[in-house]
Amino acid sequence: MEILKKYNSVLQDSLADAIAIEEPHQLYDPIKYILALGGKRIRPALTLMTCDFFGKDFKTAINAALAIELFHNFSLIHDDIMDNAPIRRGKKTVHEKWDVNTAILSGDAMLILAYQFFENYEPKIFQELARLFSRTALQVCEGQQHDMDFETRDNVTMTEYIHMIDHKTAVLLGAAMKMGAIVAEARDIDKNKIYEFGRNLGIAFQLQDDYLDVFGNPETFGKQVGGDIISNKKTILYLMAIQKGTVAEAEELEHLFSINPKNPEDKIATVREIFLSSGAAQATRTEIEKYSVKAFALLQEIDITEERKTMFRNFGNSLMQRNV
Amino acid sequence: MEILKKYNSVLQDSLADAIAIEEPHQLYDPIKYILALGGKRIRPALTLMTCDFFGKDFKTAINAALAIELFHNFSLIHDDIMDNAPIRRGKKTVHEKWDVNTAILSGDAMLILAYQFFENYEPKIFQELARLFSRTALQVCEGQQHDMDFETRDNVTMTEYIHMIDHKTAVLLGAAMKMGAIVAEARDIDKNKIYEFGRNLGIAFQLQDDYLDVFGNPETFGKQVGGDIISNKKTILYLMAIQKGTVAEAEELEHLFSINPKNPEDKIATVREIFLSSGAAQATRTEIEKYSVKAFALLQEIDITEERKTMFRNFGNSLMQRNV
Repeated sequence: MEILKKYNSVLQDSLADAIAIEEPHQLYDPIKYILALGGKRIRPALTLMTCDFFGKDFKTAINAALAIELFHNFSLIHDDIMDNAPIRRGKKTVHEKWDVNTAILSGDAMLILAYQFFENYEPKIFQELARLFSRTALQVCEGQQHDMDFETRDNVTMTEYIHMIDHKTAVLLGAAMKMGAIVAEARDIDKNKIYEFGRNLGIAFQLQDDYLDVFGNPETFGKQVGGDIISNKKTILYLMAIQKGTVAEAEELEHLFSINPKNPEDKIATVREIFLSSGAAQATRTEIEKYSVKAFALLQEIDITEERKTMFRNFGNSLMQRNV
Repeated sequence: MEILKKYNSVLQDSLADAIAIEEPHQLYDPIKYILALGGKRIRPALTLMTCDFFGKDFKTAINAALAIELFHNFSLIHDDIMDNAPIRRGKKTVHEKWDVNTAILSGDAMLILAYQFFENYEPKIFQELARLFSRTALQVCEGQQHDMDFETRDNVTMTEYIHMIDHKTAVLLGAAMKMGAIVAEARDIDKNKIYEFGRNLGIAFQLQDDYLDVFGNPETFGKQVGGDIISNKKTILYLMAIQKGTVAEAEELEHLFSINPKNPEDKIATVREIFLSSGAAQATRTEIEKYSVKAFALLQEIDITEERKTMFRNFGNSLMQRNV
């Protein structure tokens, strides 16, 4: 993302030096491995950008940004074990390249290392960052647990689903931005507004991810279009369609989400049809719009220059307009 | 342990209320389950005792004590997965009662919850506690990794072995005590001495645990005497015997530690004989003595009343004299 480029090069250098410890190799090699796999580094860049926009040298936020990126990668290592995922960013996952025990223990160490990056701040800032970090990290665990629970439930409500994606992914975006504001010593009211901006944008982004998985352009989406349908993942579109569709549509959907055909093209086409006819696609677009509007309205209230608001808005727009 | 009784009843009440969160059940039930399994609660009681002895109301250290106990139980949950252990304190381990994914995620949440207990202290104390906690937690991970690495190595040195048990178990005892001193706002020099007291005592205790596993009284030891020999665990006695014994003794030991006889009585008797004849048993007792003496010498230098020193010494003696 163009606007984040400025921060990404600084991040890249810092990440390369972030883990200086060598021994025991079996513990630290997997940590260096997953950090070297890349990724878009959106979350840590947001920390730096927010610090920058609240008027402080963005390099002072580098340790908070590294903590966020380490936490994110810790959660990937442990989630990949739980999801039995063989591949991450085109390479073997940690538990595949090493083994499950190594992935558990290296993940644990990575979570602790994340906390250590806050030690570079003076006590008051340290406590504020660590407090936000712990609350957020716990919410991410809760979100992951809800996501796993939902797999075996057939009565998940919209409210529960939004709550799950809020915890599993959105609060971390909010926290990444708020940490930048904390380091910049912004006013408490502005810290909270930028947090809610990031969080609402995160929900909108995640809902859009669900939407694009079905209706996205295969050439620009970046993931396999129809992937959620193939794996019978009950995203917001499925929940909306069950809720809004006819009895016949709901029954057909429930059937289609219980089978795993070798050639999934027909299944994808039928599901897509039901998502449209039931009104689920339109309702999802309305939800995405609702959370984006909420995010941008919060931005409007923050006490920073118009120029910087515009830059935040540009970032939000570029996040939401990607790959449509 | 008599001297810790005073603290244990307060701890018991606090632990029962420590985890107030309910939802998602699948995440928090395992945490409540392992905390309810009991255990001796030595570490958190040490935090309270140390705070008490440095002249502050020990109840002010309750949150630091809870953090230590949560961390300890987090490490048990994850270690039990890694060791494939079915039973903990006479009950099913978390990954047996639920499943591996639940044990991973609940463990993660428990580590984060541990950090949250420090939030009740003002920023300076908070930072000092969290910093010590992170360093210690990382050392425990490193110790666990070394322990796993040692299983497949046959050239582990004495220095490496002591370093492993220091990290895997002793530093947590030292940190538990130092946290009490931090909350009591003891002098830095005394905080460090009480840390080293706990740590050296921890090493002595762990070495003695190795010793008693072979030479302990079956009626008072609490674990199965000979357990380490049956499971071919290369403790300090094995390493010493290989180093000090004759070529014939070393070869026989290496052979005995590669077999798993159905009836292990002969194997245990022969190994015990070699541990004695090679001088390993005597050398181990010398090491235990060395670390105890070091611990008690450090205690002597600390700026507290003689009466309190005596109580620390009594605690140390009761820890070392158990079950011989």
